[in-house]
Amino acid sequence: MSVGPVIGIIGAGQLGRMLALAGTRLGARFAFYEDVPSTTAHTLGPCFAQDQLDAFIDTVDVVTFESENTPIALIERISQRKPVMPNATALFTAQHRGREKTLFRTLGIETAPFMIVDSLAALHEAVATIGLPAVLKTTTEGYDGKGQAVLRHADDVLEAWQRIGGRELILEGFVQFNRELSIIAARSRTGDIVFYPLVENTHIDGILRLTLAPAPALSNTLTQQAQAAISAVMTKLDYVGVLALELFDTDHGLVANEMAPRVHNSGHWSQDGAWTDQFENHCRALLDLPLGDAGMEEPCAAMINLIGELGDWQSTLSIPHAKVHLYDKAPRPGRKLGHINITATTSDNLMGYIEQVKKRVNAL
Amino acid sequence: MSVGPVIGIIGAGQLGRMLALAGTRLGARFAFYEDVPSTTAHTLGPCFAQDQLDAFIDTVDVVTFESENTPIALIERISQRKPVMPNATALFTAQHRGREKTLFRTLGIETAPFMIVDSLAALHEAVATIGLPAVLKTTTEGYDGKGQAVLRHADDVLEAWQRIGGRELILEGFVQFNRELSIIAARSRTGDIVFYPLVENTHIDGILRLTLAPAPALSNTLTQQAQAAISAVMTKLDYVGVLALELFDTDHGLVANEMAPRVHNSGHWSQDGAWTDQFENHCRALLDLPLGDAGMEEPCAAMINLIGELGDWQSTLSIPHAKVHLYDKAPRPGRKLGHINITATTSDNLMGYIEQVKKRVNAL
Repeated sequence: MSVGPVIGIIGAGQLGRMLALAGTRLGARFAFYEDVPSTTAHTLGPCFAQDQLDAFIDTVDVVTFESENTPIALIERISQRKPVMPNATALFTAQHRGREKTLFRTLGIETAPFMIVDSLAALHEAVATIGLPAVLKTTTEGYDGKGQAVLRHADDVLEAWQRIGGRELILEGFVQFNRELSIIAARSRTGDIVFYPLVENTHIDGILRLTLAPAPALSNTLTQQAQAAISAVMTKLDYVGVLALELFDTDHGLVANEMAPRVHNSGHWSQDGAWTDQFENHCRALLDLPLGDAGMEEPCAAMINLIGELGDWQSTLSIPHAKVHLYDKAPRPGRKLGHINITATTSDNLMGYIEQVKKRVNAL
Repeated sequence: MSVGPVIGIIGAGQLGRMLALAGTRLGARFAFYEDVPSTTAHTLGPCFAQDQLDAFIDTVDVVTFESENTPIALIERISQRKPVMPNATALFTAQHRGREKTLFRTLGIETAPFMIVDSLAALHEAVATIGLPAVLKTTTEGYDGKGQAVLRHADDVLEAWQRIGGRELILEGFVQFNRELSIIAARSRTGDIVFYPLVENTHIDGILRLTLAPAPALSNTLTQQAQAAISAVMTKLDYVGVLALELFDTDHGLVANEMAPRVHNSGHWSQDGAWTDQFENHCRALLDLPLGDAGMEEPCAAMINLIGELGDWQSTLSIPHAKVHLYDKAPRPGRKLGHINITATTSDNLMGYIEQVKKRVNAL
């Protein structure tokens, strides 16, 4: 007895969970296709195992995915029967650091210098060309800082190759940045785009810990540059849904780092700080509904990730305008278990609330 | 693999659905015990049929209910093994118009004059005592205006008895009111109470159509009177969770009409207009978590019910700050299918948005 349309999600982690919570409100239903049985979204719709792909496709009206590591072959197979959004080209581009940087450059978006290397000899040559310091990364499947090595001295080259090499890598020139920013936008099936404000992100050990929305000391120039960049990427890829673009803020302007073809951790604040959150706008795009206002509901917002442990999250519920979002996952070091959103009328108030939250949950 | 606590809900309609959407964010899980197989909440947790009560009780950590018509015997049976909130006394009181009015009077809360009648002769006697016009109602199980008759002339008495009599009824003196208000509050396990603002409700054919939050032209006296009333009821009943109290605004002050021992349709606006919505605060109370701020996030909010048909709800998504909530139910005359919440900075703006929504969804 399905009344609403069914959105299929490849993956069933916290992103799928929060998409389902947002889309259920709009009358949609959800089904998940997952390769690991233990999931956080499985209370929100049926989960299909790897050998049940046809049943999954039968069930759904439109398909999206949680991860840029989703196999292209799977997307292509599903696309023959049901629409997949974002499309396979967007995914194919986003899942390879070389391809995405090439796209950025084609569109006139600044990136670090980079070279693809697939041997130690090629790596030495790339180091000679790009110079040190530089960052060596796997071209695919890196997230949360995994599969990365910073090369500062000639001595680091062999060690880094031994640790993450033996597969295709990318050497990127080191970008001297003042801070890390990201912009998230949603594009509808009809080509409308809404932009969330540019936000500032703090990572520790490659894992996002804190997002401030909007990024402090934001200029119109920065916002315009970021909006122009993400909008060029979305239009070029005929993108449908939410896209995140990670940027370095440097003395010479914005430099694009990478993109994520999905709802993004740096957009979680929007659940409580924006008129329409990123999860709802992703669902609206998939369902061919008008996009919602992505502007801020309060002047300031923040998101604090709960990593590895939850601390005394219960007591944070007493902090004015702190909202707790838990993923129903068992604690494990380095694991994203939830996040706390805070809104405030002034930046000073926001910082005060953040300190109160941090003390209680051992964050940062 | 249950990480979070499991909240059991008796019933699986839209109230259970919205409780589950709010509580899932807090890491809770949900299970439903239902007597009708077709439900709107069943995508959000396992549903147990009537003959699976023990399995339902085994599954859950705490139990609540969607309807004041939940059988007391069921609550008492469950209470022997798991806590039920609100408690059986609160439910027992709320499910009988005579008992709840007697409680109100005991606490000094104004009500209409009333008499319980169980025969045509007793009804004639009550009409002689209370006078006409008066309202004849079933003592139990009435909702959305069902089981009610307005008696204006002596001729109406027999007809009304024939229509809804043959069971215990209550005759209530007609209250000359200017408007219908309601107040919603949440009480924690430790006795803390938070109050939502007093709201104004418009009913058509006994079904709620529109809520304005806060009620226009609200005085401190009205607010204090309403808060004192609901707070006296909650304390007296050792109530845990969300309670709604429906009130008539008369030339002589507030007169209590009835209470609902549950989240309430006139509190749905809080999903988008309050810092913490009624569903989340009900879950927080059940889970022994600190209650959240029940104040308004924006100066004005409204809730428009979608009754019987959805109209062009899609286009309302383009109206500034209109948020659509659908229940995934098939259209049927008189059926509550969803609601649209609107927030605004001024009452004039709010009224403008309401007109835009009404045109698109044929509401009111």
